[in-house]
Amino acid sequence: MTLEEFSFDRDGLIPAIAQQHDTGEVLMVAWMNRAALEETLATGRVCYWSRSRGKLWRKGESSGQEQHLVDLRLDCDGDTILLLVDQTGVACHTGRRSCYYRAMRDGALVEIAAPAVSPDTLYGKVP
Amino acid sequence: MTLEEFSFDRDGLIPAIAQQHDTGEVLMVAWMNRAALEETLATGRVCYWSRSRGKLWRKGESSGQEQHLVDLRLDCDGDTILLLVDQTGVACHTGRRSCYYRAMRDGALVEIAAPAVSPDTLYGKVP
Repeated sequence: MTLEEFSFDRDGLIPAIAQQHDTGEVLMVAWMNRAALEETLATGRVCYWSRSRGKLWRKGESSGQEQHLVDLRLDCDGDTILLLVDQTGVACHTGRRSCYYRAMRDGALVEIAAPAVSPDTLYGKVP
Repeated sequence: MTLEEFSFDRDGLIPAIAQQHDTGEVLMVAWMNRAALEETLATGRVCYWSRSRGKLWRKGESSGQEQHLVDLRLDCDGDTILLLVDQTGVACHTGRRSCYYRAMRDGALVEIAAPAVSPDTLYGKVP
């Protein structure tokens, strides 16, 4: 697999949108480097590059909220990826299904979705 | 409008996903600077920042394929935007509805959608 059509930025990263394959809900955006992309394609389990932690991030490795790859698409310029996934549970670290839970209303952001699960439960702080 | 929750990168940009509001189709990703975001919110017509041309890019200004804003959402980290839009015609400069027309199949990218309109028609090279 050459991946030559994939264009990584000056940090060696490419943004990837995760969309729930059957409902169309946009869940999150994260970043991949070449290793994360190769692992995702090889295993079918979505792996990102964590910019904050500086290491590969197998989505769900600490929360159990895994993403399984259904289809991987590349855009016309080759510099963004669309992942069609099957999301276990919730995608957002706040416990919400999608990270896009804030919407502009009359010039201000308001929350339009409540957490489905407590972050403390997700990350093992509550047994 | 303060937009203080919006986190722009070191180039002053934030990536924005455009999704067709009613079908859920992910159309494209482009970038906004603060001025593009403010204009989009003020006018309801989506305006990006063109990194290649180094100027504001009112989507559809040369092709007629405008995007009208239905809702604007910000993610949990404040560093990516989801635009729910009503797309006139096609979003992709290749004449396809979505920029994500290539999919990985057996380790190689294949085209899964044909142009709906010729790029020459879109950009006025054909009367």
